[in-house]
This record gives sequence, C-alpha cells and structure tokens, in this order.
Amino acid sequence: MPKIVDHDQRRMELVNATWRIIARHGMEGATMREIATEAGFANGALKPYFPTKDDLLAFAFGHVFNQTNARMAAATRGLSGLGALRAFCREILPLDENRINEARIVIPFWQKALTDESKARLHDDAMEQWRTHLLQQLHEAREAGELRAEVGDEDIAGHLMNLVLGAQITAVLSPAHYSPDQLSAQLDGYLQLLAGGTFSSPAVEKK
Amino acid sequence: MPKIVDHDQRRMELVNATWRIIARHGMEGATMREIATEAGFANGALKPYFPTKDDLLAFAFGHVFNQTNARMAAATRGLSGLGALRAFCREILPLDENRINEARIVIPFWQKALTDESKARLHDDAMEQWRTHLLQQLHEAREAGELRAEVGDEDIAGHLMNLVLGAQITAVLSPAHYSPDQLSAQLDGYLQLLAGGTFSSPAVEKK
Repeated sequence: MPKIVDHDQRRMELVNATWRIIARHGMEGATMREIATEAGFANGALKPYFPTKDDLLAFAFGHVFNQTNARMAAATRGLSGLGALRAFCREILPLDENRINEARIVIPFWQKALTDESKARLHDDAMEQWRTHLLQQLHEAREAGELRAEVGDEDIAGHLMNLVLGAQITAVLSPAHYSPDQLSAQLDGYLQLLAGGTFSSPAVEKK
Repeated sequence: MPKIVDHDQRRMELVNATWRIIARHGMEGATMREIATEAGFANGALKPYFPTKDDLLAFAFGHVFNQTNARMAAATRGLSGLGALRAFCREILPLDENRINEARIVIPFWQKALTDESKARLHDDAMEQWRTHLLQQLHEAREAGELRAEVGDEDIAGHLMNLVLGAQITAVLSPAHYSPDQLSAQLDGYLQLLAGGTFSSPAVEKK
C-alpha cells in the first residue's frame, strides 16, 4: 500500500516554515532550500507543491488572509456595529508577535504584486472582501445610532482600510510609535471620532 | 583640462531612470544594466555612484522623501493648523502619476527595510520627521480652535501616518476604490471628523 501523504498538511507545514524564514531573513534571504530544511523536507520535495518561491509567497498570503478571517469570525461572534468593527480591525492590526509576522509576509507580497497581475488581483479581491465587511458593520452602526459622524460610510471604510494596511508598515518599521498598545489606542481613538466622542472600548476585549 | 562631471546631476539622472525602470518592471526586473541604459550611461559608469541596486534604492527613497518635503514646503507656505495639515498630507497621498510612481519606489524600499537595518533607520527617521510636523500642525489647530475632537494629538498623528502610508498600497494595488479623487475625499472626511463636522476643504486647493 502506498504511503498516504496529507498534501494539505504538508502545504501548511511549508507555509509555516516560509513564514519563519521570511521573518528571519527577508524574501531575498529565503531560499527554497532553506524553507525545505526548516520544514524538515528534502529540497526536492518542495517542487510538487510550489514550483517557485513566488507560488509559495502567493500561498502564504492566502494563508495569512484565511487565518485572519478565521480569527475575525471568532472575535466578532455575537457582535454588531462598532463593536464588531473594532474586533474585526484588531485582527488585522499587528497587535502581537503572530500578527507582526503576518505583516512580514504581507509587505513582500505587496512588492511582488506591483508587477504581478495575478498577485495584484488576489490582493484586491481579499481587500474588497474586508471593505465589504466594514461597510456592513458601518451600516449596522448607523442603524443602531452608534455612528453619528456626518462623513460618508465609503470614506470611513477607506480610512479604516488605509489605517489597518498602513499599520502593517509602521508596526514593523517604526515600532517605537506604533506598538501594539499605541495601535490599539489609535483604533479606539478613531472609533471615538466616529461615535462623536462617546465610544468607549470594552476593556475586557483588550488583548 | 579634465572633463568636469556634475556628480549630483548624474546621481539625479540615475534616480529618475531607476524610478522609471522600477515603475515599469518592479524591483526584481530592474537590473543595474537596464537602469544605466535608461539613464543613457555605460553599464560600468554606474558603479562609482551606486555599487549595488540596494544603494540605488536607498538613494531613490531619500530622493522621494526630499521631493515630497520640497512640495510640502511649497504647499503649506502661509498656512497653519488643519489647512497646513491638509496640504502636507496631500503631498504624501498618491494623488497623481508622479506620486503614484513614488509609491512604486517606496513599497520595494519597505520590503528591503524589513531585513536591512540601515534602510529601516532611514525610513524611521524620515517618518519621525513627518510625525513631528503633523503634531505641530495639530497643536496649531488646537490653539486656533479648529480641532475640537477629544482624541489625543498623538493618536491623531498615528491615524494620519497610517492613513498616508496605507494609501501608498491601496492607490497602487486597489485603484478602483482608492483613486486620487477618493483618497482626497477620504482625507477631507477625516479632517471633518477632527473638526467635529465643520471642516470644509478649500475648493481652490483641489488639484
């Protein structure tokens, strides 16, 4: 009987190895050989899964996106409006080591997407899903009277998307002013602007 | 008599060529040979100025930063408070082809800075200069009674920095929802939140 290989499982092991290598040495320093070694694979064993480092990076981005979405689903359960929006954005913000490592995957992915149409489309589709969620949460917040700002929801969703993406850069490259605590306070400050000065963040959600 | 070479001039020509090549082919596709050709130089003529592509990228980032600062100085002349802050941020936002090309230089620079300490420091110093300017403008806005939000200036400066950096990504990778007009409206919407609903952007400054 042939050995049964769980291909999904092996792909995940590779992604986790890629991540650690990229976080350690950057995209340039991350060779396929090193990633294979880190994942405990023979060098040639990688090719069937990911013919090139580019394929691996695209898969790693998809993985970060899916992981973030899974955390968001858990964090927003039972919430709506601004509470849901806060929990949602906190999963994108680099507020712990795991999410800071996600930023270290996403930044090289952006760079690749600049000249790779399929990566650009993957990114745009993912970001559009998030924007749609934010618009829904803003709609709920309006209905509930939580959101009193006269600025339009489209513009607010734009602020939030730019804030959470910008934070990927500042958290990694300027941690002195964009630490987890500072980014968290900035998000709550922004929500306070939306609520017209009355939003107070639930302390229990702090993490 | 030896030929007089204006080294600063030659460096600028190289940076402009780098820019065009990176905008066209990305960092990976931008070879030193291509950049030399684009700038009208023999291949070997590049080495004395920039031994490696990394040196060239660091210089290009510095150039983008200086160009942006020069535009800011011109755009904010005679302004203070929220008016100055608006003009300042507009020079960072990718609101025209030139500034979109700047984003195309900055994104690969971030990626390099992830694992290159001297580039990370260069970036952090530059961003800290901007944050300091923003804090000064916010201080002026408070004094003038233009800024009524109860959120602290440090948090507001954080919002603005993340917004303008996030816009580098969204403008290039998701232009359908972050066009120049949309980013411009988002900035004005944010200023309206700060002003407590009363900020109206001077139409004459629209560009």
